[in-house]
Amino acid sequence: MSHFAPLHDSPYYAVIFTNRLSEDIFGYAEMADKMEKTAKEQPGYLGHESARDTAGFGITVSYWTDETAILAWKQVAEHLFAQKQGKAKWYDYYITRVARVERAYDGPENR
Amino acid sequence: MSHFAPLHDSPYYAVIFTNRLSEDIFGYAEMADKMEKTAKEQPGYLGHESARDTAGFGITVSYWTDETAILAWKQVAEHLFAQKQGKAKWYDYYITRVARVERAYDGPENR
Repeated sequence: MSHFAPLHDSPYYAVIFTNRLSEDIFGYAEMADKMEKTAKEQPGYLGHESARDTAGFGITVSYWTDETAILAWKQVAEHLFAQKQGKAKWYDYYITRVARVERAYDGPENR
Repeated sequence: MSHFAPLHDSPYYAVIFTNRLSEDIFGYAEMADKMEKTAKEQPGYLGHESARDTAGFGITVSYWTDETAILAWKQVAEHLFAQKQGKAKWYDYYITRVARVERAYDGPENR
């Protein structure tokens, strides 16, 4: 569950999906797992990172080679179905931001 | 704790800080609170979002008007001190990615 997406040569793209779950999350966990597996099979997928606190506030960042890959993933049939269910019941609110990663570094050094 | 950063006209910048806490987090929570307050006072700060799971894996995304604001915040004295402590003891590993937000939208509609 807790993992880092590998570093990749810049530039590439990040989809920052910030969301708060509703109280009706029946089926959510299964769908999230399924979408994770499906995303990994898409052209241009580079990795993703996800964290959710105990209050139901979560951030998922997925990384892609370019905007074309992001737009294609948004239109994949299984993903369209998941998005529809998310809008109808699982998410109280969400923000999606698409951003171009320009530089990145990791740390701490010397460990 | 659980909050969204407000939407803002694009373009602007996001610093995606993904991290895993070590087992030695003495002083971390107080410093995180202090850094949050200090960041809000910096020129060019637009907001931030943060989530950490029960395994200690966290994502904090801070938003800034431009790269100049990000570089200035990195050099603020209190922040330099916090970074030093973070590298020395609080973080097992982290990745920082700087990205230019090109578009954003929220949802669900009609709630």
